[in-house]
Amino acid sequence: MAYFDAASGAPLHSVARQALLASLDEGWADPARLYREGRRARLLLDAAREAAAEAVGCRPDELTFTSSGTRAVHSGIAGALAGRRRVGRHLIVSAVEHSSVLHSADAHETDGGTVTRVAVDRRGAVAAESYEAALRPGTALACLQSANHEVGTEQPVAEVAALCREAGVPLLVDAAQSLGWGPVEGDWSLLTASAHKWGGPSGVGLLVVRKGVRFAPQGPVDERESGRVPGFENIPAIVAAAASLRAVRAEADREAVRLRELTERIRARVAESVPDVEVVGDPRRRLPGIVTFSCLYVDGETLLHELDREGFSVSSGSSCTSSTLTPSHVLKAMGVLSEGNVRVSLPPGTAEEDVERFLSVLPGAVAGVREKLGAPVPAAAVVRPDEVVVDSLGKRCPIPVIELAKVFGDVPVGGTVRVLSDDEAARLDIPAWCEMRGQEYLGEEPADHGSAYVVRRIA
Amino acid sequence: MAYFDAASGAPLHSVARQALLASLDEGWADPARLYREGRRARLLLDAAREAAAEAVGCRPDELTFTSSGTRAVHSGIAGALAGRRRVGRHLIVSAVEHSSVLHSADAHETDGGTVTRVAVDRRGAVAAESYEAALRPGTALACLQSANHEVGTEQPVAEVAALCREAGVPLLVDAAQSLGWGPVEGDWSLLTASAHKWGGPSGVGLLVVRKGVRFAPQGPVDERESGRVPGFENIPAIVAAAASLRAVRAEADREAVRLRELTERIRARVAESVPDVEVVGDPRRRLPGIVTFSCLYVDGETLLHELDREGFSVSSGSSCTSSTLTPSHVLKAMGVLSEGNVRVSLPPGTAEEDVERFLSVLPGAVAGVREKLGAPVPAAAVVRPDEVVVDSLGKRCPIPVIELAKVFGDVPVGGTVRVLSDDEAARLDIPAWCEMRGQEYLGEEPADHGSAYVVRRIA
Repeated sequence: MAYFDAASGAPLHSVARQALLASLDEGWADPARLYREGRRARLLLDAAREAAAEAVGCRPDELTFTSSGTRAVHSGIAGALAGRRRVGRHLIVSAVEHSSVLHSADAHETDGGTVTRVAVDRRGAVAAESYEAALRPGTALACLQSANHEVGTEQPVAEVAALCREAGVPLLVDAAQSLGWGPVEGDWSLLTASAHKWGGPSGVGLLVVRKGVRFAPQGPVDERESGRVPGFENIPAIVAAAASLRAVRAEADREAVRLRELTERIRARVAESVPDVEVVGDPRRRLPGIVTFSCLYVDGETLLHELDREGFSVSSGSSCTSSTLTPSHVLKAMGVLSEGNVRVSLPPGTAEEDVERFLSVLPGAVAGVREKLGAPVPAAAVVRPDEVVVDSLGKRCPIPVIELAKVFGDVPVGGTVRVLSDDEAARLDIPAWCEMRGQEYLGEEPADHGSAYVVRRIA
Repeated sequence: MAYFDAASGAPLHSVARQALLASLDEGWADPARLYREGRRARLLLDAAREAAAEAVGCRPDELTFTSSGTRAVHSGIAGALAGRRRVGRHLIVSAVEHSSVLHSADAHETDGGTVTRVAVDRRGAVAAESYEAALRPGTALACLQSANHEVGTEQPVAEVAALCREAGVPLLVDAAQSLGWGPVEGDWSLLTASAHKWGGPSGVGLLVVRKGVRFAPQGPVDERESGRVPGFENIPAIVAAAASLRAVRAEADREAVRLRELTERIRARVAESVPDVEVVGDPRRRLPGIVTFSCLYVDGETLLHELDREGFSVSSGSSCTSSTLTPSHVLKAMGVLSEGNVRVSLPPGTAEEDVERFLSVLPGAVAGVREKLGAPVPAAAVVRPDEVVVDSLGKRCPIPVIELAKVFGDVPVGGTVRVLSDDEAARLDIPAWCEMRGQEYLGEEPADHGSAYVVRRIA
């Protein structure tokens, strides 16, 4: 049994558990009340706020507790946009933000605002210059994650923050994946985070708004949490979240070295031991515990089931769209293979032997899935005509790529294959396959149903 | 040590505590994931939803878990209003709703909608006919609490629901105070509640939307909780909330009889043992555990401090505005005395001896506060002129009423007293004093600073 999906949510840290239990007895009352139970709750809340602020590197009165990281993002973006509505209604986000940021951007567009989605390179990183180019007089807010939740790539937050500061535009940093590892560098204006990513309980997020940042909370408000987060404070969970943040920070430096070594091992060994695999994300500027790879000719869901049966809990594709089968928006923006995608995110304390066992089980699991799907195996050469048409209409990822690969070896160099497909994922995966295989992708043409994806054999 | 503020929040029920501890280990993972930890979390979430739905009397797929009762109200009202935007933008609420409902109504007005605030009688109850009269073709939504959080008065929800149904208007019932006692009767359309009112943990509210009710969630959304509540579900707290609701319901009938007897005793004994007191709220149609009274010539905050020192945690005034000193909007709408207000709300399991000790301590505590404030005591008659002016400018409640009372006995029958005051509370409390004393309130006149409140002695 090995849980390798810390980027979704970490199991409760033992310190968080102790703090939660203690404050269930001490912190259940309304901190706005003046009687002893209320005063005790207020003391706990104030102490938790100070501890969290110290870990973030902000003043306690800049930090409010929300009911989740998602809620912190939604409230933070809405409040910052409204606070600068007179300046303009232009929002900048990266194309690889968490879905909560992208959903906020969508809502802003629906409401009449404009959004620039900054592209990333193949490793998943934005260029600071791209943010600089996107800034304009009517820009109300820019958002950038500290590190990507799917591939672990770290973003140049400090550089982007400096450019935004120069332009007088606040930068909101979604630090959900990184705050447990250390404070966010640079001169950012707003910050959001989620406690259950660092071993705190569910139900607690952070929203930090630096003094001087214009902020107008949206929706009905009350007097709690500086008027930014309505509703009764969840103090036991808040206390546990703050305690847990301190605890993971105390272990962070040592644990980062250890997990980085383990994910380095996964990066190297997967590339060696699994054929037709693409390890994605920045190999150096990345979070310690996350490694992501995609396997050609593999259906991600089936592979996850196989790994689950072997005792490994990992996730696939966009971490927040696992109930749908659309390709991950992150992998899509990176232009890398999205089929057969696996994200391994190791929680602190992961045992080396669990990683070793994973590495020994993975090649067989991938091969098993490929065999079930009828993925190509080397066969005797058969000469095919110069143009082969593969009809994959009605078939879902990864079948179109598998069928392409099956006929490809038989097409003479210079010949082409037209893959007919109505599966959205083919649009990403066929070009990605060409890149991996060094073949030429000629483009997409409309067809009777779906599209024809045309590939020329050049090697 | 006696905690008598269950209407603010009840201490964690032992069943909730056990359920919370168990599900910290079993329910921390993302229920949208397909691996074993995710599946376990999903099972717990589904079971909690079924248990809560059974207690509410709805289908499981009609019930979503929010992060607080306040959030349930905000989301419920916003979604119901948006869902019926084509019908119109008229909202009906009662004047004595919880602040979360009134804040939503204010936000709706700011956004260009219209709001009717239905008046209540002196016992705090709305008349069903008043809702009928307020309904009109452009009414999008009506809201009514099941019972009042400050005075315990039950509202005629079933009658109002029937009238709304006839008019084709959905009724949202805020059942925060009553759901632990039993399901809400009648043909309502939406329902909200808060777990920490029934001994569940903080961080869990309920939003129920009946099938067929038009509902358009506002703000950024994701696929969790039927698209109504974005962000990672707080499963351990949800499991504890559902377990606790079942547990308090199992004890509800027996406990209701016991607490009703205890609050009946408080109602009777306070009226006997404390001079110049007004016990408010409906004496019969009321929640079992709540009793509220107001004491003339007493500052509520000071009285609470005295009672806290004696070991009693009670609250005063509007339960959600204790950090401000504005008079309770509930008492104001009822037209009853708002000064020296105390709400006693007994949690299930309250010991009879604690209530007895409270009743023995209260008269002395009130007398002590009155003595400090220089409240009137019977004195030898001094004949005063026919019109006495009392200058209470710059003095805060309850001083203006105290100064009125001090001179009043000396004014001849037929004479008048003009109280000059710039304290908002005087506008409520001077008429209330007249009603309690059987004197004639002649009205308010503008004065140089503040107002003059004119009272004629008729007895």
